[in-house]
Amino acid sequence: MNGLHGTVWLVGAGPGAPDLLTLRAARLLQEADVVLYDALVHPEIVALAGNARKISVGKRSGRISTEQRFIDRALVEAARHHARVVRLKGGDPMLFGRAQEEIDALEAAGIEYHVVPGVTAALAAAAELRTPLTSRGLSRSVAFATARSGRGTGEDDGWVDAIVGADTGILYMGVEHAARIAVSLIAAGKAALTPVAIVERASHPDSRTLRCTLAGLARGEIAEIATPAVLCIGEVFAKRDAEALQIAAGL
Amino acid sequence: MNGLHGTVWLVGAGPGAPDLLTLRAARLLQEADVVLYDALVHPEIVALAGNARKISVGKRSGRISTEQRFIDRALVEAARHHARVVRLKGGDPMLFGRAQEEIDALEAAGIEYHVVPGVTAALAAAAELRTPLTSRGLSRSVAFATARSGRGTGEDDGWVDAIVGADTGILYMGVEHAARIAVSLIAAGKAALTPVAIVERASHPDSRTLRCTLAGLARGEIAEIATPAVLCIGEVFAKRDAEALQIAAGL
Repeated sequence: MNGLHGTVWLVGAGPGAPDLLTLRAARLLQEADVVLYDALVHPEIVALAGNARKISVGKRSGRISTEQRFIDRALVEAARHHARVVRLKGGDPMLFGRAQEEIDALEAAGIEYHVVPGVTAALAAAAELRTPLTSRGLSRSVAFATARSGRGTGEDDGWVDAIVGADTGILYMGVEHAARIAVSLIAAGKAALTPVAIVERASHPDSRTLRCTLAGLARGEIAEIATPAVLCIGEVFAKRDAEALQIAAGL
Repeated sequence: MNGLHGTVWLVGAGPGAPDLLTLRAARLLQEADVVLYDALVHPEIVALAGNARKISVGKRSGRISTEQRFIDRALVEAARHHARVVRLKGGDPMLFGRAQEEIDALEAAGIEYHVVPGVTAALAAAAELRTPLTSRGLSRSVAFATARSGRGTGEDDGWVDAIVGADTGILYMGVEHAARIAVSLIAAGKAALTPVAIVERASHPDSRTLRCTLAGLARGEIAEIATPAVLCIGEVFAKRDAEALQIAAGL
């Protein structure tokens, strides 16, 4: 214990597959006294914390603020009674991880904390697709965003500008509204024939990829999407034919 | 060997610190027959490949196309003579990793390959800063881009739209032109007082953070930046005072 309180590590558990955890995260789990983990984190990752009390917190989506407040308090409470506390979050803690609330609570309580980055879902999806998100001559920028509602509904339209402004766009969450997302992006000027790839459960053994165009998505061509999934939008996701490949490789 | 050829893994080595490597990457290195690695990858990571022939390829920046072509050929050649080939790239292979050229070469040669994602520099920087890139009410989108030249010089201005379109913007590379980047962003409408944090060598023991505003950056307030560095732009990087923290934490 460092003075009165223990130390908290906010740790990224990666996209899903247990071996996409970092070496540092694995070591911190092995040394932890308490682990608070998101429901989505793979059981094999949680099991690495052999000596720790393990507390499942929160749900993946639809988590309401009282639940977040419960997590904040549980985290502070854990650090008041234990030397080494790991807060294990899916993906990376600093990207769509709701980390600010937990950081605020730790700082307000004067608790020492560190952040350990992780592999985020978009990069696991790109690996699954074997498609670079950036590519010379095709894409030099990538935007990651979450969509809550369609354009025209008010305050939450920033995601549309972000996706339209970048060469490659990745939407985390909200994929259950994929058709509405596509309508909003086309309305904002994204080309209707922009290729789309939806990667369900990237890095898991049952991962699945669905392909269409923005127009197809808007028409409802993709009926059901299993979550978690990321929606990948951009020219880099076009299927390349063999001839183009040979030219690209200089053969 | 799978048929005539070996298999290639394009593997992310993470942002720098050896223990931010994934467990999968560590195992693949231990099993590798040949490793082709970027100059920036930490020697301790390369050393994990105890049984492999280790080949240093490429430079971090200013790499010219003939060098890339040399790498492509070396990769194909390695897979023709060895069962397990690891191509180790800094950060994540699919984000600013020039992976497409290598994938094209592997596909054209009919070589089996897989991609293993890694922790990208922006997320290591966010961990270092202990600042979430997305935050409720403040940022719901992040753009990652590279800047080659200022607005008005022609074809390469897409990065400006990407950074202006998103709530949080991260520039990989090009930080040596930080003042010109800031001028371009302000000209495109990004608020002059937008907070900036520059993180040099994120995750390394000698990492350093420099803070200013876009206007300050444009005026040349930050004279020297050690690379590799990421340039982080957005309201999330504002310094929060203690009072605001207590309110945020509901105390």
